[in-house]
Amino acid sequence: MSERPPERVVIRGVKPELECGRFPVKRVLGETVAVEADIFSYGHDALECVVRYRYEDDELWTEISMEALGNDHWRAQFPVDKLGQYIYTITAWIDPFRTWYQDLLTRIRADQDVTVDLQIGAEMLKAASERAMGADARKLQHAARHLRIEDVDDRLAALASRYAERSRASHYRELRVTVDPIRARFSTWYEMFPRSCGTFKDCERIIPEVAEMGFDVLYFPPIHPIGRTHRKGKNNSREAEPGEPGSPWAIGSKEGGHKAVHPELGTLDDFRRFVAAAKSLGLEVALDLAYQCSPDHSYVREHPEWFRWRPDGTVQYAENPPKKYEDIYPFEFETPHWRSLWEELKNIVEFWIDQGVRIFRVDNPHTKPFDFWEWMIRDLKKKHPDLIFLSEAFTRPNIMYHLAKLGFNQSYTYFTWRNTKHELTEYFTELTRTEVAEFFRPNLWTNTPDILHEYLQRGGRPAFMARAGSHAWRKLRRIWARL
Amino acid sequence: MSERPPERVVIRGVKPELECGRFPVKRVLGETVAVEADIFSYGHDALECVVRYRYEDDELWTEISMEALGNDHWRAQFPVDKLGQYIYTITAWIDPFRTWYQDLLTRIRADQDVTVDLQIGAEMLKAASERAMGADARKLQHAARHLRIEDVDDRLAALASRYAERSRASHYRELRVTVDPIRARFSTWYEMFPRSCGTFKDCERIIPEVAEMGFDVLYFPPIHPIGRTHRKGKNNSREAEPGEPGSPWAIGSKEGGHKAVHPELGTLDDFRRFVAAAKSLGLEVALDLAYQCSPDHSYVREHPEWFRWRPDGTVQYAENPPKKYEDIYPFEFETPHWRSLWEELKNIVEFWIDQGVRIFRVDNPHTKPFDFWEWMIRDLKKKHPDLIFLSEAFTRPNIMYHLAKLGFNQSYTYFTWRNTKHELTEYFTELTRTEVAEFFRPNLWTNTPDILHEYLQRGGRPAFMARAGSHAWRKLRRIWARL
Repeated sequence: MSERPPERVVIRGVKPELECGRFPVKRVLGETVAVEADIFSYGHDALECVVRYRYEDDELWTEISMEALGNDHWRAQFPVDKLGQYIYTITAWIDPFRTWYQDLLTRIRADQDVTVDLQIGAEMLKAASERAMGADARKLQHAARHLRIEDVDDRLAALASRYAERSRASHYRELRVTVDPIRARFSTWYEMFPRSCGTFKDCERIIPEVAEMGFDVLYFPPIHPIGRTHRKGKNNSREAEPGEPGSPWAIGSKEGGHKAVHPELGTLDDFRRFVAAAKSLGLEVALDLAYQCSPDHSYVREHPEWFRWRPDGTVQYAENPPKKYEDIYPFEFETPHWRSLWEELKNIVEFWIDQGVRIFRVDNPHTKPFDFWEWMIRDLKKKHPDLIFLSEAFTRPNIMYHLAKLGFNQSYTYFTWRNTKHELTEYFTELTRTEVAEFFRPNLWTNTPDILHEYLQRGGRPAFMARAGSHAWRKLRRIWARL
Repeated sequence: MSERPPERVVIRGVKPELECGRFPVKRVLGETVAVEADIFSYGHDALECVVRYRYEDDELWTEISMEALGNDHWRAQFPVDKLGQYIYTITAWIDPFRTWYQDLLTRIRADQDVTVDLQIGAEMLKAASERAMGADARKLQHAARHLRIEDVDDRLAALASRYAERSRASHYRELRVTVDPIRARFSTWYEMFPRSCGTFKDCERIIPEVAEMGFDVLYFPPIHPIGRTHRKGKNNSREAEPGEPGSPWAIGSKEGGHKAVHPELGTLDDFRRFVAAAKSLGLEVALDLAYQCSPDHSYVREHPEWFRWRPDGTVQYAENPPKKYEDIYPFEFETPHWRSLWEELKNIVEFWIDQGVRIFRVDNPHTKPFDFWEWMIRDLKKKHPDLIFLSEAFTRPNIMYHLAKLGFNQSYTYFTWRNTKHELTEYFTELTRTEVAEFFRPNLWTNTPDILHEYLQRGGRPAFMARAGSHAWRKLRRIWARL
């Protein structure tokens, strides 16, 4: 028999907690984290339970007493008023003085002789005084020396409890909460190809209209130079006609790669001006992070070690089954040279952050390693806690939820395919009334550049109204869910 | 950036699992453990997932392939055919050859040129052959050298998969299952004070009758010598009349303590005879483990360090609020001399195991330390895996469930207070259709020596029939719940 575990108190069923603390839960600026748990011990000792929390950059913990809600259920909440991560945990211990106090009151009510009990209490107060300092220590010493029934009251009990012996306290594991900008929880996105206006300069003209419609975010599919090899034409044609621009997701040509702007859209200065103009009317610009290359991208020539080469000297084109992207090479994330690849990919984001961008819609993250995203998002958000990463993963639910847990601040959903009352009720119940709400923030797109549901193709104006109504209803439900 | 975590595969949502693996789940001899989990990776690689398990005394693991049920949900089950503990876990890895095989079939069906794919496949087979031995290695080498479309089939794929590279496999944590005797899951108990017959010799006469009624277990409240100091009289009177026997739970007098038999019941030999007689008719004898002392118990004199002494030289009597046990001293489990106390308490059980007893009903375990029970039950069951410990804890649900998790094989319940259809439905749903069924085995007492519900006091024969019917119904529900 080795040492006894010192912990007297059991702390279990802690909420919010994800996967035994493996992942942080999510909040936005100004919200609170309500921490609940079942906390109990054997016997009938009184417990003291606190939530301890600190902002990740701070060293000192703040302690707040938990409220006993009955049946061993305890609760406390703390506010999160800085972007970034907070760490929180629960500590609980036996409070023998409070136990003694409760027993004393019971004995007094039953008219029992409490002479011996007062002696016991005095010893406890003396011990507490040795753990205290200053005025508190003197008060406890004084009480210990002259303890009479009339001296024992709630104030003395609270003072003694403050200096309860904590060496056998139970400490729960540390949990984390990521605090994102308010726009991570709710924002309305306007997606457009800049080419639809012309250049970035041309696009500045529509900013007021978009802002007036109530949008918060203006999202561009990729704005980079487009490759020529295997360029796709209209309607997913595998060969482009002369003059056709190609798919903006086939990034990279001699005009530049992921850190360049398509010359037909303007210059980097034009883009920065656009971002500033949008910001001045309350609109954030979101860019598309598409981690892949046209065969013409300079990465292919300069870093062949970042790709997987077949025995015949070709690279297998990217796929998101059943979609085939013949104009695109995927990166080989399992390459032995993964460190340089990952650093470069992170550097792409840092480049656009420097141009004023804080929101990134990420293309097909489910075909890239989970550990890559977890590392990159965490690293970037440590420096820029106001970043928002939107996961565009149309795939199986486990994977969509996993990407949200490991760091994505918002996610595409199945909303496009949830059109009937029953489908909407079932889906939104899952999103707002289960644990999913702690980590998965739905960004409800009705359609995308390559997805247009039959409901919208054939449903006419009523279908569009129903879709808009679902959006509003969903916002209301999220508010209700938090009440 | 340090090393990449090698695991490619996510394993989550594992069932059955309790509190992140802190506690074992429960099964009985001859049952199976159905292990389920969500298992997935990024991209579209094929996975191989296995459950690995071993009996705790064995070194070698057995592996069984999990079945893919769709939507990333996997399942396998293994039998538990020995008493004791089994350890189980999940291991999963990417199977690149199977991925290649699936892609190849798709390309063949689409009439694509697969020359390069066959080259890639051959390289994989060559690598697999280096991980194999004997005939398997030769087959793989041969296939690698001469790979043609017609050579690629399910058999080759299965062979190559057997030697898939596992260095980046994901390993889940190890989980445990305690396998108890079948009587732990269901048995019918007959409780009687041996004094009701007279002596143990007298009690032998009723064994056939009890067995014929269909009972499996014959349970005696404490059979030890009873103290005289503050002996209780009839109806919880605080003073006994001359000739009154006192409470059997006030253990210990000059006639002996926890390892002795009350002289009015007979000798230790008489008790052993009784146990053997009961066994011969299929009845197990259960004893009451009451870890407390009459003031007359020799422990008080010989081991004062095992009790908590008040400043006036007295010991505070035991309580289970609101019940007061003025005739009983509780042990001080927090004593610095806890090791000698715990060893002695365990030794008491070992003594009665030597007399042929395997089942122990434990008195008020919730007033004693959780870590004591967890240690003692585990230690004793390692040597005697057929032991059954029944927890008599009428207290709050968290504590009742916690005692079950840490090792008690059966537990008293709220059954006595669940009499209406609604109450019974709600309670048994909780017991059989939630996670509770993995660790808490209800032993449904309608009454006890100190609990007699108004329903039975006033309900007459119909109430008794309803109680018996609830028992039978509960047995059927448990069967249904496992189907």
